[in-house]
Amino acid sequence: MIQVIKNGTVITMDEKRKKKYENLDIVITDDTITSIEENYQGPYDKLIDATNKIVLPGLVNCHTHLGMSIFRATNDNLTLQDWLTKKIWPIEDHMTDDDVYYTTLLSCIEMIQTGTTTSNDMYFGVQGALKAIKESKVRSVFSRCLTGRDEHALERIEEFKQLVRENQGNELLAFTVTPHSMYTCDKEYLKNCKEVAEEFHLPIHMHYCENQSEVEGIQKEYQKSPAEALKELGYLEHKLILAHGTFITEEEQKLLAKGNVSIATNPISNLNLGCGIADLVSYQRNGLNVCLGTDGQGSGNNLNMFYHMSMVDQLQKAKYQDPTVMGSYDVLKIATINGAKALNLEDKIGSIEEGKKADLIILDLSNTEVYPTTDLITQIVHNVESNNVDTTMINGTILMEHHQLTLPIDVEIIKKQIDQITNRLMVQEEK
Amino acid sequence: MIQVIKNGTVITMDEKRKKKYENLDIVITDDTITSIEENYQGPYDKLIDATNKIVLPGLVNCHTHLGMSIFRATNDNLTLQDWLTKKIWPIEDHMTDDDVYYTTLLSCIEMIQTGTTTSNDMYFGVQGALKAIKESKVRSVFSRCLTGRDEHALERIEEFKQLVRENQGNELLAFTVTPHSMYTCDKEYLKNCKEVAEEFHLPIHMHYCENQSEVEGIQKEYQKSPAEALKELGYLEHKLILAHGTFITEEEQKLLAKGNVSIATNPISNLNLGCGIADLVSYQRNGLNVCLGTDGQGSGNNLNMFYHMSMVDQLQKAKYQDPTVMGSYDVLKIATINGAKALNLEDKIGSIEEGKKADLIILDLSNTEVYPTTDLITQIVHNVESNNVDTTMINGTILMEHHQLTLPIDVEIIKKQIDQITNRLMVQEEK
Repeated sequence: MIQVIKNGTVITMDEKRKKKYENLDIVITDDTITSIEENYQGPYDKLIDATNKIVLPGLVNCHTHLGMSIFRATNDNLTLQDWLTKKIWPIEDHMTDDDVYYTTLLSCIEMIQTGTTTSNDMYFGVQGALKAIKESKVRSVFSRCLTGRDEHALERIEEFKQLVRENQGNELLAFTVTPHSMYTCDKEYLKNCKEVAEEFHLPIHMHYCENQSEVEGIQKEYQKSPAEALKELGYLEHKLILAHGTFITEEEQKLLAKGNVSIATNPISNLNLGCGIADLVSYQRNGLNVCLGTDGQGSGNNLNMFYHMSMVDQLQKAKYQDPTVMGSYDVLKIATINGAKALNLEDKIGSIEEGKKADLIILDLSNTEVYPTTDLITQIVHNVESNNVDTTMINGTILMEHHQLTLPIDVEIIKKQIDQITNRLMVQEEK
Repeated sequence: MIQVIKNGTVITMDEKRKKKYENLDIVITDDTITSIEENYQGPYDKLIDATNKIVLPGLVNCHTHLGMSIFRATNDNLTLQDWLTKKIWPIEDHMTDDDVYYTTLLSCIEMIQTGTTTSNDMYFGVQGALKAIKESKVRSVFSRCLTGRDEHALERIEEFKQLVRENQGNELLAFTVTPHSMYTCDKEYLKNCKEVAEEFHLPIHMHYCENQSEVEGIQKEYQKSPAEALKELGYLEHKLILAHGTFITEEEQKLLAKGNVSIATNPISNLNLGCGIADLVSYQRNGLNVCLGTDGQGSGNNLNMFYHMSMVDQLQKAKYQDPTVMGSYDVLKIATINGAKALNLEDKIGSIEEGKKADLIILDLSNTEVYPTTDLITQIVHNVESNNVDTTMINGTILMEHHQLTLPIDVEIIKKQIDQITNRLMVQEEK
């Protein structure tokens, strides 16, 4: 099947090309981008008119917990510890795989509607989550969250290994090994996780230095800096995606940069939980690959990468009190191609290039709320809302066209199921 | 005419009431809220069904430049000085009153669509701007920006006085005197402005301590702190709305709090221009009234107060590395009733109360991008996008209902005019 996206303003994020093209056609054969050219005259089965619209690579969300949609915006005025112990864990303890199916499905729909085509997920209830991911046809880097300080720790690893074995060969699915963090896993368990990563040739994705007390805990346990601790564990010989990384000293940045390390920054979550602002300018200068995550909706508010993108450079400008330290195009790289690199998917996604998979989104910026556009890339990074995402295509399949989901999913039924879950599990609080 | 908003979840922002009511009816007679009650059974001319929707007071934008819509998202990677001298001033020099009519009208539409019912504006091209404001029927605190270090300085004051005289008795219009700032006005001119404020009994609205170099300039000129300089000028005997106020020491906060001072914070603009994060927690603790502005779209990206609101508490949490320093309800006060107080309009607007003017908005949070809502106020502050604003009413007049503007304004014609203005005045840059 040949599909042509015609006449769009195209931002390819391919560093060999210009930043922006007017009136370019993108030809997609089955799941793959086969030609990018002006005025394509060849055959096609479906034509997608992108006149006066913008075509971008789909966004890559490098750290999230898709099952957490029911916790959206629940962390008002709470410390991380209070939020987890009072709002999250008591409820998660009662969430079934079936619950996680619905909460994950709602998140997948949110991603499609907001232009994210790939997510890097870490949660439990994996059978439910995986069912939702497969049904929604989003590209997913998936895992089973591995916490390692209780009697079920090793069972979780076995569950994960089984999951990987059962799901080989799915074009839309990849895996990472996800030890939750250094504070929830002891040394022995972290080494077990590393062995799994080696056995299956998978990257490792973990929470890392999210707040100051976490850093202090690691220093106490290992008697060295967190980066040196990672080195001691052999993790720097391995591809790593470190989520948050809010507190990394310059010395540690240089040490981490000797490995194959990406920092998945979560600016909104870090603000909300009082963690502060990661020094992304320094991370990039020292050679770390910076990519972007939303975190779960509890601390991150939503999975709309445009909302999160808007804060990436703005917070750096504030941190440095210098508006020239990071520009919009760099933010767009962080949300696309850098994410693809982090997830070992740069040969497949993250930019619009011939030979890559057709993970694309089309934006419509004609509504008065965002009119006019004179600097397109800055506009995309700072002013796009979910209603500007017109069309979302993953692996050559259109999942939303002109704001209409094309999946055989009835969102009203899902919302009813979500209502039942929140009614069963959550206390509706009077504020 | 009697209108009833029926069965909404109502957040009144009236401190004498609960924070939230389910299924409350609001009765509006002509321009005024005349009853707030359960299950209203009286007569009505129009019924607005708010079942499963949220009714809020309209938002109050306490610092903006409505004429700047064509500069939306144009400040990528530029210092304040470079942005002004390269991107803004050369274009503003060629803007006619007719241009400002269209750019302001576009901003008024954006406000209606995003739930703002009152703005505090400071710009030039006042005849054009005022025409747009009157046509769009938004409530406006209006002015003529007064810069005072050139030969036309006094003419501007005369233009402003004439403007006030010509527009008495307009229910939707109020005025402030707006000396641009202490760095663009000398002492003599600032005193002239104060006399005008006294003559017409108007508040003064000015830029204040936006960045560090401004503070240093004032210290050098006055040989004292900016707050002490304001005192010397007699400004603390007067009602003041100080826009930005990013850099105010604790000592100065206490001095300002002895006057009648509101700080109109502009968090997004402050991030974008590398000014940093104002210490709002401290300002409130020391007794200053904190309200919210978007600034113009150039530095503030947009006029969507929900976008700006989302950052207010989150930035404080980051600044203090403590997520408990400011909560969502406080942000909602900052965006509504505190704004009304700042603008001397607290008897009319800022909350849903019997006797106040009917400036109301209705939100619909049923779309999957923001589903579900378990903590309503946090959801409103952190997750509302423009497409969640269903209905906007100002002074009892519905200006948007179910996302459809009811004004006799053809937005496509306005967009075409805006295109002509940008084509004439702005160089389209290749990025």
